[in-house]
Amino acid sequence: MPDELTHFNAQGQAHMVDVGDKASTKRVAIACGSIRMQATTLEKILQGNHKKGDVLGIARIAGIMASKRTADLIPLCHPLALTHVDVALTPQTDPPSIDCTVTAETHGQTGVEMEALTAVQITLLTIYDMCKAVDKGMIMENIHLLHKSGGKSGNWSSIK
Amino acid sequence: MPDELTHFNAQGQAHMVDVGDKASTKRVAIACGSIRMQATTLEKILQGNHKKGDVLGIARIAGIMASKRTADLIPLCHPLALTHVDVALTPQTDPPSIDCTVTAETHGQTGVEMEALTAVQITLLTIYDMCKAVDKGMIMENIHLLHKSGGKSGNWSSIK
Amino acid sequence: MPDELTHFNAQGQAHMVDVGDKASTKRVAIACGSIRMQATTLEKILQGNHKKGDVLGIARIAGIMASKRTADLIPLCHPLALTHVDVALTPQTDPPSIDCTVTAETHGQTGVEMEALTAVQITLLTIYDMCKAVDKGMIMENIHLLHKSGGKSGNWSSIK
Amino acid sequence: MPDELTHFNAQGQAHMVDVGDKASTKRVAIACGSIRMQATTLEKILQGNHKKGDVLGIARIAGIMASKRTADLIPLCHPLALTHVDVALTPQTDPPSIDCTVTAETHGQTGVEMEALTAVQITLLTIYDMCKAVDKGMIMENIHLLHKSGGKSGNWSSIK
Amino acid sequence: MPDELTHFNAQGQAHMVDVGDKASTKRVAIACGSIRMQATTLEKILQGNHKKGDVLGIARIAGIMASKRTADLIPLCHPLALTHVDVALTPQTDPPSIDCTVTAETHGQTGVEMEALTAVQITLLTIYDMCKAVDKGMIMENIHLLHKSGGKSGNWSSIK
Amino acid sequence: MPDELTHFNAQGQAHMVDVGDKASTKRVAIACGSIRMQATTLEKILQGNHKKGDVLGIARIAGIMASKRTADLIPLCHPLALTHVDVALTPQTDPPSIDCTVTAETHGQTGVEMEALTAVQITLLTIYDMCKAVDKGMIMENIHLLHKSGGKSGNWSSIK
Repeated sequence: MPDELTHFNAQGQAHMVDVGDKASTKRVAIACGSIRMQATTLEKILQGNHKKGDVLGIARIAGIMASKRTADLIPLCHPLALTHVDVALTPQTDPPSIDCTVTAETHGQTGVEMEALTAVQITLLTIYDMCKAVDKGMIMENIHLLHKSGGKSGNWSSIK
Repeated sequence: MPDELTHFNAQGQAHMVDVGDKASTKRVAIACGSIRMQATTLEKILQGNHKKGDVLGIARIAGIMASKRTADLIPLCHPLALTHVDVALTPQTDPPSIDCTVTAETHGQTGVEMEALTAVQITLLTIYDMCKAVDKGMIMENIHLLHKSGGKSGNWSSIK
Repeated sequence: MPDELTHFNAQGQAHMVDVGDKASTKRVAIACGSIRMQATTLEKILQGNHKKGDVLGIARIAGIMASKRTADLIPLCHPLALTHVDVALTPQTDPPSIDCTVTAETHGQTGVEMEALTAVQITLLTIYDMCKAVDKGMIMENIHLLHKSGGKSGNWSSIK
Repeated sequence: MPDELTHFNAQGQAHMVDVGDKASTKRVAIACGSIRMQATTLEKILQGNHKKGDVLGIARIAGIMASKRTADLIPLCHPLALTHVDVALTPQTDPPSIDCTVTAETHGQTGVEMEALTAVQITLLTIYDMCKAVDKGMIMENIHLLHKSGGKSGNWSSIK
Repeated sequence: MPDELTHFNAQGQAHMVDVGDKASTKRVAIACGSIRMQATTLEKILQGNHKKGDVLGIARIAGIMASKRTADLIPLCHPLALTHVDVALTPQTDPPSIDCTVTAETHGQTGVEMEALTAVQITLLTIYDMCKAVDKGMIMENIHLLHKSGGKSGNWSSIK
Repeated sequence: MPDELTHFNAQGQAHMVDVGDKASTKRVAIACGSIRMQATTLEKILQGNHKKGDVLGIARIAGIMASKRTADLIPLCHPLALTHVDVALTPQTDPPSIDCTVTAETHGQTGVEMEALTAVQITLLTIYDMCKAVDKGMIMENIHLLHKSGGKSGNWSSIK
């Protein structure tokens, strides 16, 4: 890993890092996070998958759409064309929560870690939005990168 | 609190809830969250406030700008005109982390909880982006609503 | 109705019409349209509502989100804060098609016809996108305003 | 053509389809549609091309700009860099209407059908917006893909 | 005028200034600027108004649309709903140039100076874009606020 | 240089020029501009770099973010993926002003002149926004392309 924050030039001023000479390679990033809630809230969400409103389906769409907006939201992030995004949502009962895992891929000169993390954040936020009328105390937590591959720095995993 | 998820109509289909008959009142929401990191990463950020790149200043701007994009990102969120947004960032040394607290305000028919939470998320993500070259294992956590006031449901605090 | 196209000034140059002196009133617009398809495509969509991918649920979300982007897309359209959007989708078997009806509302100085029509268009386009792998020949048709109320020009209906 | 809706994974959950292994080829799509109106409305538009406001010129620009926003509007659409967009508008007198034909091109891993169709939709909507003060009953119709080429599925035409 | 830069709080940190207690009044701002070019470039533009491509018509639309995006572009700018935007373009022959004057209006708690200036900038940039194939040396200059009215600070003019 | 404005087809109608057959080459553009102000305003900005609000740091971020939005703002501009953006800000005391120079780079089929110029414009506008409470008379001037390289038309400099 580099010793310095690369988003600043020699004068300490922010710039969009020059990636023009980096090789185009396949890039994959997997990120995850959770939203904790009351047991009754989780119950309402799970019912929704069957016969009422589909909270998880809508949150998944919001996450996918947000991944495409990443470079609009994160100031020094390079624009790139995602080739694949998948948002998996898994309910957990102890404690009551929804786990979110996002896989993002492209073929390009920069990684897709930010796209995967942005999708996780907006997916969880959308779950919050749709349930906040019944449970304002939900907590989003443990949002982090699980794995990345591709590029000069190669593979990285949060689990060694 | 209502008993049901209000973002769905009687047929269980998502809609943007009708707020046309709600009173326009002053709305305030305060949300918070943290990003945990290695001690050496925190050190680099804190140096940056003085003579190198200003990670926290850039993250603050990203959070404020994102709060204005909330209705673009969260599918069923009503568009509204924020009258005030403040992003406070506080370094913590044990464990090494940055705490983020956002205050959002408007005068209108819907609350600004989502605007405050979106600003927290994008502020933390921007810190991640700017430091990921040296620390990919940073974790965003404990993102939640602290307080809201205004509107029919009145005051709410996460601390009872 | 006026005799002239109001989006041009006396010199014939486009401008965003001055609505500053118009009264703020409740505005409602209802627009509709259809997408015609093969019978087997409709069948796949209807199965999706139950156990496979939810085409209609996703199209509904896309339509609601697009209604919030109307002023970004239509050059001379005034920005406004929608207070309610509802997208209703009804399958028809003869001919095989999906009907879309959108209700949009606000309280303001301009109407919401464009917001309702934009939601219809993007809802239908999203159905097209999700089914085009099996049916590229789908046709979007009969997209028009059904009804509007509010404002100086008062009520209008396509059915006299 | 595939037998299934490809925008869903094996669990029936929406994802952005993985196109990372598809070949980059030249992609062309041509889409069309019409807006029907009163004879006096058409007359006003045609006068505008000469000495008053230029409805068709503005609608053409709106369509081109919208084609660049396609991936922002259509949830599971891949972002791509268009290399060419052309919007042709042809007045018809019987019945009074404007025909719109859009050609979109890129060199990439996914097709540009959605970009061409989105441009048609927003071009027609902009004509509606600019003329609605004199003719709210205009109808958009017959919006469909005419032709596509490039990619694994090769050529397709609506006219066999 | 205040003595300090108001976009920073007492700690010198950027925030979106609280305008929640300001009165809603009618706000008008007029801004202007020019783009200087070769005489042959101006000639091509002026021909375009008659029989070839309409550079000025397209630039005017780009300026109006950009004014609606101001709060997306300028970090600490409050979102607001414009009620009127007019872009006037006047060719000058000595030196060869196009003058641009934009009037923006709203009724609200903050001024519309930034909206008027953003429209001027993007209008001029669009002229540059459309003519750069024949004249890369065009210069944009003298972009400033001419006049504003409304709000606590009242009237201001660049000409005393 | 070509003899005609290339953004129009043979009928004089605007289109997004076909660049599909152009070679992908490294593209660089450097653009610049200034904002003139009162001496006391410059002083406040320069103090800000040390202990108060960081006007220049925020303006730099706004410029970089705006460069990524260029194709959204300029109607006939091709979307492209920037690989590098750098915004340099230099205070001048006689007359009191801030000079802005932006370097933009990509590897692609079209140039990045518009991206560099858009970043200059929005950087200067953001300085205006942050200082307008104390100095509404600031003037943006001398905004032009300094240099470009890459593509069929090769190198170009404003200084011969």
